[in-house]
Amino acid sequence: MSNPIPTETKAPVLTPEQLIAVQHRRYATKRYDPSRKIPADLWHALEESLLYSASSAGLQPWKFLVVDDPAIREKLLSKSWNQRIVVTASHLVVFAARETLGKEDVRRYIDDFAEVRKIPSEEKAQLLERYSGIVDRPGLDGFQYASYQVYIALGNLLTSAALLGLDSTPIGGFEPDAYDEILGLKGSGYKSVVVAAVGYHADDDSNATSPKVRFPLEQVIQHI
Amino acid sequence: MSNPIPTETKAPVLTPEQLIAVQHRRYATKRYDPSRKIPADLWHALEESLLYSASSAGLQPWKFLVVDDPAIREKLLSKSWNQRIVVTASHLVVFAARETLGKEDVRRYIDDFAEVRKIPSEEKAQLLERYSGIVDRPGLDGFQYASYQVYIALGNLLTSAALLGLDSTPIGGFEPDAYDEILGLKGSGYKSVVVAAVGYHADDDSNATSPKVRFPLEQVIQHI
Repeated sequence: MSNPIPTETKAPVLTPEQLIAVQHRRYATKRYDPSRKIPADLWHALEESLLYSASSAGLQPWKFLVVDDPAIREKLLSKSWNQRIVVTASHLVVFAARETLGKEDVRRYIDDFAEVRKIPSEEKAQLLERYSGIVDRPGLDGFQYASYQVYIALGNLLTSAALLGLDSTPIGGFEPDAYDEILGLKGSGYKSVVVAAVGYHADDDSNATSPKVRFPLEQVIQHI
Repeated sequence: MSNPIPTETKAPVLTPEQLIAVQHRRYATKRYDPSRKIPADLWHALEESLLYSASSAGLQPWKFLVVDDPAIREKLLSKSWNQRIVVTASHLVVFAARETLGKEDVRRYIDDFAEVRKIPSEEKAQLLERYSGIVDRPGLDGFQYASYQVYIALGNLLTSAALLGLDSTPIGGFEPDAYDEILGLKGSGYKSVVVAAVGYHADDDSNATSPKVRFPLEQVIQHI
């Protein structure tokens, strides 16, 4: 008799109503309370969320830089359209993507995969071959491809923060090249793509209580 | 005495441990149980999640197509590297992004914004001016910009599905041009970017119980 793989218990942790409430209350925070810091256990859960984000073929073509140093945050400020949230939010994460994608990225992942899943070496060679086709395509813009994955992680982070009762702001208004210089990314093989602030909103953040603006559901979601 | 805006109650709905467990159990499902359909209330919560996803400047440059028709799913199959999940998963969502971004996209959003937030017409004109600068930039690739936002919604959807105890798979392996043809997107101003299957995994989905493969935290997250 075969030994069937058991169906995992994947009980829901939220009701649909709770999920909708979380989605409705997430908003782009414009003012943070600089005195409130995210507790270490909550921040750790957000780092795990980033780490376990989905990526195409599992390649994880990213780095997440958490800028703790206030002096570096100050330097980033003028390269961020002077948005004060860059210095006032409890945490600031810079999402960086691989500048190029090649066989070495696939090899790094498959090495890891083979070790964790304990697969035989022939199978590993096959996987390496198959996955190489994903990045070894004519016309593939590796940085763009990697950047798309980074935005999956951003989407995950924003939702994850809201689940923990934290506020967040995705930041697209910044100078990537200046960020790369300040953060020492030049020559690292990674370039900054997008930024997120996470923390607790200030009492006078008007966005916190403003009604949300969304196109009607029927304009955005179409059933076919 | 001024009337301060009250600090919103934003109690966490999950503990950090619960959030980590949700992140760990989300995985790219390879086999779905075709007999299990997502109940309507859960699916509705996922549509709300898509609708309320974050996007740059709030522009929501996307459409989400839910493919209910089995005959259309069959047509998509051969344009999806023959991945059976396209037909076996309870739900299939095609994420489409605006082909170009221009002043009409800004106007559509600001019209909506002005109505919901009840702002005076001078302020509306200023907003229109300011936001137009976001899309009216030399060298901006509107479709790429819109596609990035779409991936935020994808990241949100994957996490949201896991919260409800559902399985999901992001699908990059498909032919966007053929999808656009089949789904009637040609000439609509939107193009398909990425796809997600959502449902319940089959008992024989080996990925469900395989250990997850991730680079070590210290290689992925760097504190500065």
